[in-house]
Amino acid sequence: METDRLRTLLEQVAQGARSVDDALTALRDLPYQDLGFARIDHHRALRKGFPEVVFCQGKTPEQTAAIVAQLATRGRILATRASEAHYQAVQAVVPDAVYHTLARAITVGEIPLSPDAPYGVVLAAGTADIPVAEEAALTARMMGVRVETRYDVGVAGLHRLLEHLPLLHGAGGIVVVAGMEGALPSVVGGLVACPVIAVPTSVGYGAHFGGLAPLLTMLNSCAPGVAVVNIDNGFGAGYLLGRTLHTSIVPL
Amino acid sequence: METDRLRTLLEQVAQGARSVDDALTALRDLPYQDLGFARIDHHRALRKGFPEVVFCQGKTPEQTAAIVAQLATRGRILATRASEAHYQAVQAVVPDAVYHTLARAITVGEIPLSPDAPYGVVLAAGTADIPVAEEAALTARMMGVRVETRYDVGVAGLHRLLEHLPLLHGAGGIVVVAGMEGALPSVVGGLVACPVIAVPTSVGYGAHFGGLAPLLTMLNSCAPGVAVVNIDNGFGAGYLLGRTLHTSIVPL
Amino acid sequence: METDRLRTLLEQVAQGARSVDDALTALRDLPYQDLGFARIDHHRALRKGFPEVVFCQGKTPEQTAAIVAQLATRGRILATRASEAHYQAVQAVVPDAVYHTLARAITVGEIPLSPDAPYGVVLAAGTADIPVAEEAALTARMMGVRVETRYDVGVAGLHRLLEHLPLLHGAGGIVVVAGMEGALPSVVGGLVACPVIAVPTSVGYGAHFGGLAPLLTMLNSCAPGVAVVNIDNGFGAGYLLGRTLHTSIVPL
Amino acid sequence: METDRLRTLLEQVAQGARSVDDALTALRDLPYQDLGFARIDHHRALRKGFPEVVFCQGKTPEQTAAIVAQLATRGRILATRASEAHYQAVQAVVPDAVYHTLARAITVGEIPLSPDAPYGVVLAAGTADIPVAEEAALTARMMGVRVETRYDVGVAGLHRLLEHLPLLHGAGGIVVVAGMEGALPSVVGGLVACPVIAVPTSVGYGAHFGGLAPLLTMLNSCAPGVAVVNIDNGFGAGYLLGRTLHTSIVPL
Amino acid sequence: METDRLRTLLEQVAQGARSVDDALTALRDLPYQDLGFARIDHHRALRKGFPEVVFCQGKTPEQTAAIVAQLATRGRILATRASEAHYQAVQAVVPDAVYHTLARAITVGEIPLSPDAPYGVVLAAGTADIPVAEEAALTARMMGVRVETRYDVGVAGLHRLLEHLPLLHGAGGIVVVAGMEGALPSVVGGLVACPVIAVPTSVGYGAHFGGLAPLLTMLNSCAPGVAVVNIDNGFGAGYLLGRTLHTSIVPL
Amino acid sequence: METDRLRTLLEQVAQGARSVDDALTALRDLPYQDLGFARIDHHRALRKGFPEVVFCQGKTPEQTAAIVAQLATRGRILATRASEAHYQAVQAVVPDAVYHTLARAITVGEIPLSPDAPYGVVLAAGTADIPVAEEAALTARMMGVRVETRYDVGVAGLHRLLEHLPLLHGAGGIVVVAGMEGALPSVVGGLVACPVIAVPTSVGYGAHFGGLAPLLTMLNSCAPGVAVVNIDNGFGAGYLLGRTLHTSIVPL
Amino acid sequence: METDRLRTLLEQVAQGARSVDDALTALRDLPYQDLGFARIDHHRALRKGFPEVVFCQGKTPEQTAAIVAQLATRGRILATRASEAHYQAVQAVVPDAVYHTLARAITVGEIPLSPDAPYGVVLAAGTADIPVAEEAALTARMMGVRVETRYDVGVAGLHRLLEHLPLLHGAGGIVVVAGMEGALPSVVGGLVACPVIAVPTSVGYGAHFGGLAPLLTMLNSCAPGVAVVNIDNGFGAGYLLGRTLHTSIVPL
Amino acid sequence: METDRLRTLLEQVAQGARSVDDALTALRDLPYQDLGFARIDHHRALRKGFPEVVFCQGKTPEQTAAIVAQLATRGRILATRASEAHYQAVQAVVPDAVYHTLARAITVGEIPLSPDAPYGVVLAAGTADIPVAEEAALTARMMGVRVETRYDVGVAGLHRLLEHLPLLHGAGGIVVVAGMEGALPSVVGGLVACPVIAVPTSVGYGAHFGGLAPLLTMLNSCAPGVAVVNIDNGFGAGYLLGRTLHTSIVPL
Repeated sequence: METDRLRTLLEQVAQGARSVDDALTALRDLPYQDLGFARIDHHRALRKGFPEVVFCQGKTPEQTAAIVAQLATRGRILATRASEAHYQAVQAVVPDAVYHTLARAITVGEIPLSPDAPYGVVLAAGTADIPVAEEAALTARMMGVRVETRYDVGVAGLHRLLEHLPLLHGAGGIVVVAGMEGALPSVVGGLVACPVIAVPTSVGYGAHFGGLAPLLTMLNSCAPGVAVVNIDNGFGAGYLLGRTLHTSIVPL
Repeated sequence: METDRLRTLLEQVAQGARSVDDALTALRDLPYQDLGFARIDHHRALRKGFPEVVFCQGKTPEQTAAIVAQLATRGRILATRASEAHYQAVQAVVPDAVYHTLARAITVGEIPLSPDAPYGVVLAAGTADIPVAEEAALTARMMGVRVETRYDVGVAGLHRLLEHLPLLHGAGGIVVVAGMEGALPSVVGGLVACPVIAVPTSVGYGAHFGGLAPLLTMLNSCAPGVAVVNIDNGFGAGYLLGRTLHTSIVPL
Repeated sequence: METDRLRTLLEQVAQGARSVDDALTALRDLPYQDLGFARIDHHRALRKGFPEVVFCQGKTPEQTAAIVAQLATRGRILATRASEAHYQAVQAVVPDAVYHTLARAITVGEIPLSPDAPYGVVLAAGTADIPVAEEAALTARMMGVRVETRYDVGVAGLHRLLEHLPLLHGAGGIVVVAGMEGALPSVVGGLVACPVIAVPTSVGYGAHFGGLAPLLTMLNSCAPGVAVVNIDNGFGAGYLLGRTLHTSIVPL
Repeated sequence: METDRLRTLLEQVAQGARSVDDALTALRDLPYQDLGFARIDHHRALRKGFPEVVFCQGKTPEQTAAIVAQLATRGRILATRASEAHYQAVQAVVPDAVYHTLARAITVGEIPLSPDAPYGVVLAAGTADIPVAEEAALTARMMGVRVETRYDVGVAGLHRLLEHLPLLHGAGGIVVVAGMEGALPSVVGGLVACPVIAVPTSVGYGAHFGGLAPLLTMLNSCAPGVAVVNIDNGFGAGYLLGRTLHTSIVPL
Repeated sequence: METDRLRTLLEQVAQGARSVDDALTALRDLPYQDLGFARIDHHRALRKGFPEVVFCQGKTPEQTAAIVAQLATRGRILATRASEAHYQAVQAVVPDAVYHTLARAITVGEIPLSPDAPYGVVLAAGTADIPVAEEAALTARMMGVRVETRYDVGVAGLHRLLEHLPLLHGAGGIVVVAGMEGALPSVVGGLVACPVIAVPTSVGYGAHFGGLAPLLTMLNSCAPGVAVVNIDNGFGAGYLLGRTLHTSIVPL
Repeated sequence: METDRLRTLLEQVAQGARSVDDALTALRDLPYQDLGFARIDHHRALRKGFPEVVFCQGKTPEQTAAIVAQLATRGRILATRASEAHYQAVQAVVPDAVYHTLARAITVGEIPLSPDAPYGVVLAAGTADIPVAEEAALTARMMGVRVETRYDVGVAGLHRLLEHLPLLHGAGGIVVVAGMEGALPSVVGGLVACPVIAVPTSVGYGAHFGGLAPLLTMLNSCAPGVAVVNIDNGFGAGYLLGRTLHTSIVPL
Repeated sequence: METDRLRTLLEQVAQGARSVDDALTALRDLPYQDLGFARIDHHRALRKGFPEVVFCQGKTPEQTAAIVAQLATRGRILATRASEAHYQAVQAVVPDAVYHTLARAITVGEIPLSPDAPYGVVLAAGTADIPVAEEAALTARMMGVRVETRYDVGVAGLHRLLEHLPLLHGAGGIVVVAGMEGALPSVVGGLVACPVIAVPTSVGYGAHFGGLAPLLTMLNSCAPGVAVVNIDNGFGAGYLLGRTLHTSIVPL
Repeated sequence: METDRLRTLLEQVAQGARSVDDALTALRDLPYQDLGFARIDHHRALRKGFPEVVFCQGKTPEQTAAIVAQLATRGRILATRASEAHYQAVQAVVPDAVYHTLARAITVGEIPLSPDAPYGVVLAAGTADIPVAEEAALTARMMGVRVETRYDVGVAGLHRLLEHLPLLHGAGGIVVVAGMEGALPSVVGGLVACPVIAVPTSVGYGAHFGGLAPLLTMLNSCAPGVAVVNIDNGFGAGYLLGRTLHTSIVPL
């Protein structure tokens, strides 16, 4: 522990067991370790609302299980981009792990939510966008945020979106997931006053260029108050929704 | 006149004044000229509903005036991308030429329209898109098509668009002009049954890339029935609207 | 049914069974449902010429079969991007479903067409473009439009195209499908007066970039009257052809 | 007022002065107007924390002055991308208008802020990024949000950033403005728990491609909790910062 | 045969068996067929030096075999992008078909070449570029052109290229195939006076973007006299080499 | 003169005035100079048909004049991308210099051409493409090649092109210059047997991207025998046309 | 001074004037300042071989002069991207400032170089690349490195490059500046054993895309040992050359 | 041996056995072979610090084994992008070959390194970047350079990087490998004075575009002294690190 090391050093100086010059030399090396404990403070604040996160893609089921088993002693866990195979390996070592098929994620533990807490909303334009939307919703929930989801509310059938207006007006933040041309965030951004986090997806073909089309759409939104995360980045959007709602839940 | 030449040749053969072999040789050269008169037929059909068109950009006022003066003997004229300077040079030689400031176009002549003829609609998402929209509307009108325009009806304020729904439902074709993220054609395409012609504009900045963003948006529209023309191509969209409405106005 | 609900509410007010204030409150929620029945009206108009459509790509055969079985009670059906496996699952529950191998589509029902109705044309530049062309033709036919197809008429052998000129001149709209450099729509657009709907395909290699090359070609067409849909989007082009011809078939 | 019109209609039905069928017909037209008053509700909520906004770019000084003069009767005004010429025209008609040189913006009115209200932070990586940063800060302040700014804190000199860590840890949201390679938001995102809004700028040259480089950098940030707005879009970022902080200032 | 039909028609006119007006009408349809025989003339000229070509990619072995069997009655055949499976199907029906493994091509027939005929050269920068180079060499040979090949002569080891200078100086045209950064055509173009046809290949990785890098390199060549074909288009380059050398072999 | 130096060295060895070892050392440095005279040989061959070339863009009129004055002692000169100002400076020092306004080029000297020499053709699709086409034609002519030009023969009016078919069939090489969508080379490539050199131009707007659209079109041409040079590179195309025709004019 | 502050604090602890706990608290805030003096150490090391640098582009002459005047007290100065106007303002306040026209840079002071020190080489492919090359050479010289320059040695005339081989073989690092297709670094990288730093320039047109073409060429170099900096970034290349040679000049 | 051939020729001249003219003719062909032995000299210098290299990707295990077996007689070997299958084939013929699983490379032989030799450092931002980093480290080690590696030191957790500052300050060159947004080289470049070689990796998704995002980031680095190699090009970076350190280890 850095603080202990510092205390020892200072006590040695106070007791004359270490010269000032010698202590000065020792302290020159400290900055980086000091930064370390500044980070710990920061991490502590961060963990108030957030679980440990594991990105499974590119990891074997065995590697994933080993990591989750180690983290499981420290609190809640969210493992994203997880396959069934990842889950089976994890469950063998952490029996209370839960698999979320749509969100392709594994969780351990949760935060009980009050039904009248502020809430966020996650919208998906098409059914093919649902996996990304579920990843966003699950991420925010693991951060202790109440989340409502509404799917298949794309702009080609406006009435499907407009019937949810009261829900949208009450939200503290909205994640909007859309592939194809990605026009939904602009429409939502024009209807609400809370922050809108737009997530382009790779759902589309041809001049869609793997999500480039909805990405550009969202960046150029004519409605202010819309920010964008990477293509298919449901985790990032859910995380940001969680951060946004925490500013109203947890005193700064 | 090609037909005359052909008739003469055939009469020479019929009268024995030209051998079959000689006529055969003469005819081997005809195809390309023949194509010519096929084109003339076609041009005649085309001109039923269309004026002569001059693209002024890159031409000097003097060049433009010379061309318009020559065409003015043949009927209606539409000169697009025309500056004030172009107009002044044209008006000096064709006094009844009219300048349309917003559309940046010069016209000579017009077709009287019946107030209950089928009509097309031209929408513009933002005020900065109006010049392109006006060019489209003017082009279609010069083809004898009745056109209604509604501007500043972008998706960030849906109510501005929705109050025009009855007008949209009655249209035989709709041109939708939009810059920024270009989401308007998708929303319109979801509301109407007639063809929607989308025009991306270069209005925007940053990741707009000179109109690439709305272009991709429109090509990926989740609403079927939307086709796209080049960035800022108001003339092309208006021309296509004219063609589309002519299929119901003029018997094919 | 929304109209019935509205009628009941009004009758209750007329009969004094509901107060004006209470009815006012109930009506405040209506907009979105009202929009719903506006959509129904609209949908009804739309359906005059259009079947239900299912996009099979990304759906399992079982999902597709379930959706088609449900829709089959409502009228004609078009299921696009369908594999043989999709068809076998569908046919098990909807025995009169038909599979169109080239168009990769399943249909249920059809509209009898008069042989002298206005017609559209679908052209394909190369043989590899035929699946996209067939999807376009089938879509328009399912909307009640007569369609003629001519394939392998690319610009590298102009005579193959030019021998179909009379057919092209008589058409109410033409879909032109082309991969490689995508030059065919420009040539066709220069020959005819009706709307031309261009479809770039992903057929090509190298600097073709998955269809980007013909897409840009078509957007920059020097022939006016050409509009473009997404790469490989045969359905969208056929749908637009159907809409275009309906303006002359069905009174607006 | 829509509610009044509805009440009259219902009273007429209740009084037998209007038949149920007639009222039903009248109501079919209502949805779109109804949407209108839903919007009014929404606008009211929105205006709690936000001024009227004018985008001056592409408008003449005279047009800008006319718009500002009209809006000035309704409350606070923010006019962005304004030149000195815009300001002089505005000030002639709205004498208490203020010009913010760095932010290139005109404001009318302001909201007094309590010194211990929650605050946001706006960071700029380089001095050339300051105009965009100032636009962001001013926008958020005009929404009633307290904003701290720190400039020239780019990653090539980490100590300049790290000395502001306590300020960053206390913020409710941080806007990070960066051109060149745009690495700063990733570093900031790794240090704090609040939402980070990244703004790429067009400051750079060569393979910067007008801001594409930092845009991609920010979208791919390895630090979660970072969302991105369009290149040079200081207004959008400030607006989102304002929305984010309002969720903790104004009860939802 | 079009000429026969024309002759018959003219003879009928000469014999009074057909009126001039009737013949005129018949001739209006001729242009497009006439174009046909113009094409035949042209094709005849073309075939002096060229075989029939089949592009196998995307065709089944059975389809390929059927096409080759039909063409085999007309003369030499070149089938490109052919797999072993294509060859086995072809050989079953055309026993003297030859498979060229490196060039991935099937040939039937050949033109005997005089050893002192003018010759072309095909260079490949790296060993991985050899299949494209072999396709080019084989194509030109099937057109009756003598071709010398030199491989693995990339710019990172200039001496390997320079030892072939005398060969290069004597060539009537040079195809240069290169992946990676594609610098070889610039160096060759600076050393010789004959036309240089550059072929970028998809050999590379990372910022190579599937051949975009060498394509741009070759288009920007600082040595004049270099023209470029599509990425991996060995056939196109060989065909052009054949055309180029034919201008000196066969009188125009 | 390198050969002289070599001869002297060898004579010294023959006369015993220089030891073998000493000569060996001297020769180790020769390769690069030797390469020099290899280049001279090569240059001599090249100059049979080619003038000295100066690229004026980026050079001041004074610099250009100085270079031309120096070269004027050696033979014909071609100076491309030259403005009127460049010409005036040049003419002051080389009075018989000629300015070609359309081609934006200065020439000194010429080669008399026999009227029945083989010829090349330069086509331009639109009138705006003429400067690039003229640069190509002039370049080839300065190399001693007879060139025919035909302009405004774009694919939107096929008959304009087809009437020149006999001229095209007789050519030894054809340069095709086209902006917009750049479809003309594909059509020409399908009609002729000689090499086709395609030049995309920057004439266009919107999704034309400064010539990228016609460049991709030409690279993907479905007609074989088409090679491409850089956007607006009339000089390069004319140079290649010259090289191509020289293979039939000058014995290899 | 941070070290003084630390010493004082430690002395207070040693003298009992400050408690251990109090000192501990004070030290928790130190890391960031500590980092500061770590930076100072680092800066000191850095300055052994490097002047202060000012990037003038985007700064007014007055701003530039003010900055240079302030820095002039601390040692050598390099101001890049400086215009004549910048220089005049600087010279007014720092009379011994020198302007380097080709390099567009201002310097104050220099390091005397031993003529037999290790040296770097800066090559430029074309004369238009010289400004970037001069910026690189000047930057390295201001770091105390001996630099040889050779210009106009592009790959289209290999002999111009090869005559400098002995110079290249003796260099400790080589900067290669090239526009157009940017092939020179590949050729140089194949000839030498020292590090090659490639600089693409924006010199070119058409498919050059402002330097993208040579940038991709250099990144894909088939010769290992080549690294790339941003387009036109002569300063960055010279700086890296300086760093590279310092590893052999100054002990690490 | 070229020198022998030259000596013989000169001796023949000295002995009168060969005329000066005859020798002159023989020497005209020499330049290219002479260049050959210049290359040999150069290669000898190069091999002081470098092994033979084989790029296995695209080669069969058998081909690879054959090449390695042949090279094994000449000294150290490095075979990159090697699979387990490649290794097994190699080991069968070269038993002392070693497989480096992480680096995906095979080596034969090594250079013993003194523990206090100058050293380079290889950093990897994330664990997924380690294979590229290992390839870089192994390459440099095979060139006789001492290399330290530190992995998982990305910018989202600055303290992980900063604790290695003393190591970085002592290095003679640093390779920084990073995927995602690629910000690490900018931060490192701001901390050290030695050359930094940045390697973007293809690790990422969405708007990462296969490594384009970190590539642009690194090219636009705000810290000078950073050069970039191709995406995933660990070998190239390691090779350059080796070259850089050799300038201080081996006298030039």
